[in-house]
Amino acid sequence: MFLILPSLASSNLAALGEQAARVRSAGYLHLDIEDGNFSPGITFGPDTVKLLRDYTDAELDAHLMVTDPESYIEELRDYGVRSIAVHLESSRYPSRALNKICQAGMRPGLALNYKTPVAEAVPYADLAEYVLLLTNESDCAGIKFKPYSLDRVMELRRLAPAGCEIWVDGGVTPENLPLLAAAGADRAVMGRAVFSAADPAARIRELAALAAAAKEESHV
Amino acid sequence: MFLILPSLASSNLAALGEQAARVRSAGYLHLDIEDGNFSPGITFGPDTVKLLRDYTDAELDAHLMVTDPESYIEELRDYGVRSIAVHLESSRYPSRALNKICQAGMRPGLALNYKTPVAEAVPYADLAEYVLLLTNESDCAGIKFKPYSLDRVMELRRLAPAGCEIWVDGGVTPENLPLLAAAGADRAVMGRAVFSAADPAARIRELAALAAAAKEESHV
Amino acid sequence: MFLILPSLASSNLAALGEQAARVRSAGYLHLDIEDGNFSPGITFGPDTVKLLRDYTDAELDAHLMVTDPESYIEELRDYGVRSIAVHLESSRYPSRALNKICQAGMRPGLALNYKTPVAEAVPYADLAEYVLLLTNESDCAGIKFKPYSLDRVMELRRLAPAGCEIWVDGGVTPENLPLLAAAGADRAVMGRAVFSAADPAARIRELAALAAAAKEESHV
Amino acid sequence: MFLILPSLASSNLAALGEQAARVRSAGYLHLDIEDGNFSPGITFGPDTVKLLRDYTDAELDAHLMVTDPESYIEELRDYGVRSIAVHLESSRYPSRALNKICQAGMRPGLALNYKTPVAEAVPYADLAEYVLLLTNESDCAGIKFKPYSLDRVMELRRLAPAGCEIWVDGGVTPENLPLLAAAGADRAVMGRAVFSAADPAARIRELAALAAAAKEESHV
Amino acid sequence: MFLILPSLASSNLAALGEQAARVRSAGYLHLDIEDGNFSPGITFGPDTVKLLRDYTDAELDAHLMVTDPESYIEELRDYGVRSIAVHLESSRYPSRALNKICQAGMRPGLALNYKTPVAEAVPYADLAEYVLLLTNESDCAGIKFKPYSLDRVMELRRLAPAGCEIWVDGGVTPENLPLLAAAGADRAVMGRAVFSAADPAARIRELAALAAAAKEESHV
Amino acid sequence: MFLILPSLASSNLAALGEQAARVRSAGYLHLDIEDGNFSPGITFGPDTVKLLRDYTDAELDAHLMVTDPESYIEELRDYGVRSIAVHLESSRYPSRALNKICQAGMRPGLALNYKTPVAEAVPYADLAEYVLLLTNESDCAGIKFKPYSLDRVMELRRLAPAGCEIWVDGGVTPENLPLLAAAGADRAVMGRAVFSAADPAARIRELAALAAAAKEESHV
Repeated sequence: MFLILPSLASSNLAALGEQAARVRSAGYLHLDIEDGNFSPGITFGPDTVKLLRDYTDAELDAHLMVTDPESYIEELRDYGVRSIAVHLESSRYPSRALNKICQAGMRPGLALNYKTPVAEAVPYADLAEYVLLLTNESDCAGIKFKPYSLDRVMELRRLAPAGCEIWVDGGVTPENLPLLAAAGADRAVMGRAVFSAADPAARIRELAALAAAAKEESHV
Repeated sequence: MFLILPSLASSNLAALGEQAARVRSAGYLHLDIEDGNFSPGITFGPDTVKLLRDYTDAELDAHLMVTDPESYIEELRDYGVRSIAVHLESSRYPSRALNKICQAGMRPGLALNYKTPVAEAVPYADLAEYVLLLTNESDCAGIKFKPYSLDRVMELRRLAPAGCEIWVDGGVTPENLPLLAAAGADRAVMGRAVFSAADPAARIRELAALAAAAKEESHV
Repeated sequence: MFLILPSLASSNLAALGEQAARVRSAGYLHLDIEDGNFSPGITFGPDTVKLLRDYTDAELDAHLMVTDPESYIEELRDYGVRSIAVHLESSRYPSRALNKICQAGMRPGLALNYKTPVAEAVPYADLAEYVLLLTNESDCAGIKFKPYSLDRVMELRRLAPAGCEIWVDGGVTPENLPLLAAAGADRAVMGRAVFSAADPAARIRELAALAAAAKEESHV
Repeated sequence: MFLILPSLASSNLAALGEQAARVRSAGYLHLDIEDGNFSPGITFGPDTVKLLRDYTDAELDAHLMVTDPESYIEELRDYGVRSIAVHLESSRYPSRALNKICQAGMRPGLALNYKTPVAEAVPYADLAEYVLLLTNESDCAGIKFKPYSLDRVMELRRLAPAGCEIWVDGGVTPENLPLLAAAGADRAVMGRAVFSAADPAARIRELAALAAAAKEESHV
Repeated sequence: MFLILPSLASSNLAALGEQAARVRSAGYLHLDIEDGNFSPGITFGPDTVKLLRDYTDAELDAHLMVTDPESYIEELRDYGVRSIAVHLESSRYPSRALNKICQAGMRPGLALNYKTPVAEAVPYADLAEYVLLLTNESDCAGIKFKPYSLDRVMELRRLAPAGCEIWVDGGVTPENLPLLAAAGADRAVMGRAVFSAADPAARIRELAALAAAAKEESHV
Repeated sequence: MFLILPSLASSNLAALGEQAARVRSAGYLHLDIEDGNFSPGITFGPDTVKLLRDYTDAELDAHLMVTDPESYIEELRDYGVRSIAVHLESSRYPSRALNKICQAGMRPGLALNYKTPVAEAVPYADLAEYVLLLTNESDCAGIKFKPYSLDRVMELRRLAPAGCEIWVDGGVTPENLPLLAAAGADRAVMGRAVFSAADPAARIRELAALAAAAKEESHV
């Protein structure tokens, strides 16, 4: 199985509830909380997440691209988030946040910027249930997938314990999705490719099937 | 005359376009861009502002509660914003941002946190067309209007040149609005009091009339 | 009445429990938590405070000279602290910390560095039960009392509501204590003058009487 | 008497030694050390100051517009600097740096950005031998003198003890120099007005005479 | 030979002098200076270290978990410290601090957080006489030893020159101590395991023998 | 071919124009812009670069050792700079600055401090036309070449695509230059070795020949 997580921040930011409703039946919703200080741009914060429950009952996961992730954990749990990924780069002591997520009853994830060597995730593989790899990096010319990211996924798959999932995020398209799945990814965060479809939930099913097939084949 | 500026960030954050449309006929829309680093919470960023044009043709003003306001100026201008207030507290050299706003063809405003003495706005009264005073401060018990703010408005009215407008923002209610207008305010940013109304545009007209009457009376 | 608060950080830092026991009968103990980042030097942290309960049952108050005071509040409450002063200079929104202290069931205080104009405490006089004024400033030549601080106490006494106590801290000696009390101080934090005495609790009683007399006289 | 201090950073930055030599006979040289972090631009650092001794034997004073002024003090003393001004805004505890300058055998000065109320210099008037007031603020439209600065000089003259000199710096021209001198300034830092002259040392004498006359007249 | 360094910060923080005296005969004392900004908690600072000389004549080493380690070096030397470890993560240019320690007549050490790849210590192996590896990381569930740390010790032993000692610190227990010694550690910092013993000096001798035996055996 | 880039910041900082003129015929000029915040010392800023055009028509490249490199790019282009290296360590998202340099019509380079593993440059090898390796690190005992840097050059040569140039900078002398060239460097930044010569342009030609020969020989 392979999951496609629809990324709400890449849909219409002026109609987030409506967009969330469009992918409700997919069962999952990915929330990028970006503060314009850790990350280049601002998306939305917990106050927005709180309101999404009126529009969807999908399982929510949050990706915290913020300078002080620990201060968001309890509030997001209260608003129904079930998994939270914090950035390795946002603390000298990532165990604290991972453990705090765990103690709050959610699945802890560790996110890595494109810049960060994947080997640096290894010391935390016993605390994180998944590693979210950013597979590109924003620049002035738009965000494009970086082929080098395939190497990163393969390296992480080799280094991380079997139980630790690999999620990929950033510039994932129908073209590179099968390559990422074959390289070892378990879930992919996708935005435009999903929300631009007339029926985004159907689109998610197609993409998931595509990725699952590529993953399957790579094991033969 | 007295203007009520509807504050979009206090409406439904999951349906910003729809909420913007509800107050379209009021002619003005106030946008709080908050990054969770300068300010306590995250609201939305320029990417969201860009999309609002599809929902309203009101005159947009932005209030930048961010650590690096200068980097937002040109982008917001391109998305149709006509006035920008930057915080006195966000730079050792506020003239730079005020001047940059001016050179980009917009009206420059200077915002002051509740904490900051209003006399500190005076050195910039030749560069700012308006001063936005925060009339309360977020705390753990919700945001309430601070009566001390009436003194601040009066002091600023006395110190600032006649041509410099005073805007008030934070915890403004139908109860304290006339007091603020009488004290010298020219515009008030209001959120919940407006958007919770069945007809928010009509509500804005009532509130503006209330404030204008109080202002008028105070001059007698 | 006038209270002298013995300042543990100015006693023997290598024997804090023992020193706390020496002033137990005085009933009060003042704890300077300094992190060497907000403040020039490091004293001790909550882990040390936790252990003090084995040595004293005096009423504990903490003065947080740290970059992130909010993160200390709950822990200190759990260790028996009854009042906490946070610095006006440590946040753009001091109401948050003051309110958090209050909600945790303790008395909130606002501390001001020697550098900060006392008028800046006024907007928070409704939230803080006391204002702690630093009456000197550490420099390379040792810490000496600043006569200018008498003006600061008098100005604050004039500006603050009657119910708001004024505490003074820094270079307070038997010589300037009566002047500070006459100027309007309600409590004084004293270190060396207390702990260097053979019977520090007796010393505290003498100093308190001295200050109370000066305060009394100033009202005549 | 009134001194004009030629500001080397406003001369030809690619030929600082040569420019220093042009004003040698004036007897004084003002050095703006700017790091592009505290200040908007970078000028030069101690390594450059060290080399200036080969070009001039004028009395050197340094104005530190840097994030960590204390770390520059000893090195500048070793290179022949006789007075150093540190910014009030660069530390929570300005006494430390002022005292360190004093202990290193130099004259300590306190500098205030245009933004900072002059009353905030008063608590340090016993430690600083002079207060350097920035009389304008860099913005995108070039640096111009702010008329409001005349009020600041007058206020500081009233508040500061007689022995504390007032220096003005920023946009000083032959036109506003007499006004500043009459308002209470004792020295003026001037750049372009001096170095653009064919004989800058003669220019300095003329300007000093102009200011001294205005100062004299204001006392009548 | 293998040395056990008793870690004072893990003893009774309210009776540091007394605790130091308990391990005096062991000959060594390890001092964790933590500022709650670089590190999660505050322990004590140089003012406390100064007073320890009245309680012990053991050889003192300091581990600086602070944001600005360079500013502590000279003071600690004056108080009798003989070795100082600074963190690789606390500067872009660790050579400066290492060299400064060396020039002050002490042994320079380089400390690495659990998060940091040990290969990053290699460029400084010519300047540091020892590398202190943190073998765990504080989190909300208490500090536990990380088995992954054994790999880190082995990797560092392979990469570092023979003359460079490896110290381990964090969650070291009688159970994992032999493993760490066998992996290549030369010294271990231990707190609770030592100070909880009735005779901590005797405990240190036992633990040192245990580690030395394991080290010996691993070479066979 | 091998290029020697004369480093202006290591010549006489009080006579930069004159020094630039001395190496004009060499055709290249290397400009270290250091802000004393990212880097240990301050050299000069864009205002100085602007003036250099009066002294030389050499091809200018800039090495930005500053906290906010993106803000310098357009200004330096306007002053004639043709290549800019930004530090990997100065941003979480180096692609942004590299892309901005490219879009401004200049050659983008990526600089790495001595501390940073060279493998971390690989993800940006498609965006950077050259990687500038700092081959030493400033400390209190002067700046010396680190032999370990030869390993770094070789490792980078192996990891980077053929089209990506390697530049070395820091403590390069006639003695280690041939070793660096043989290890894979394409250009070397040199200061004192060049400017201390009677005819620096001739010296550059000799050094370039020396390096080219060593490079040639290493390929045999």
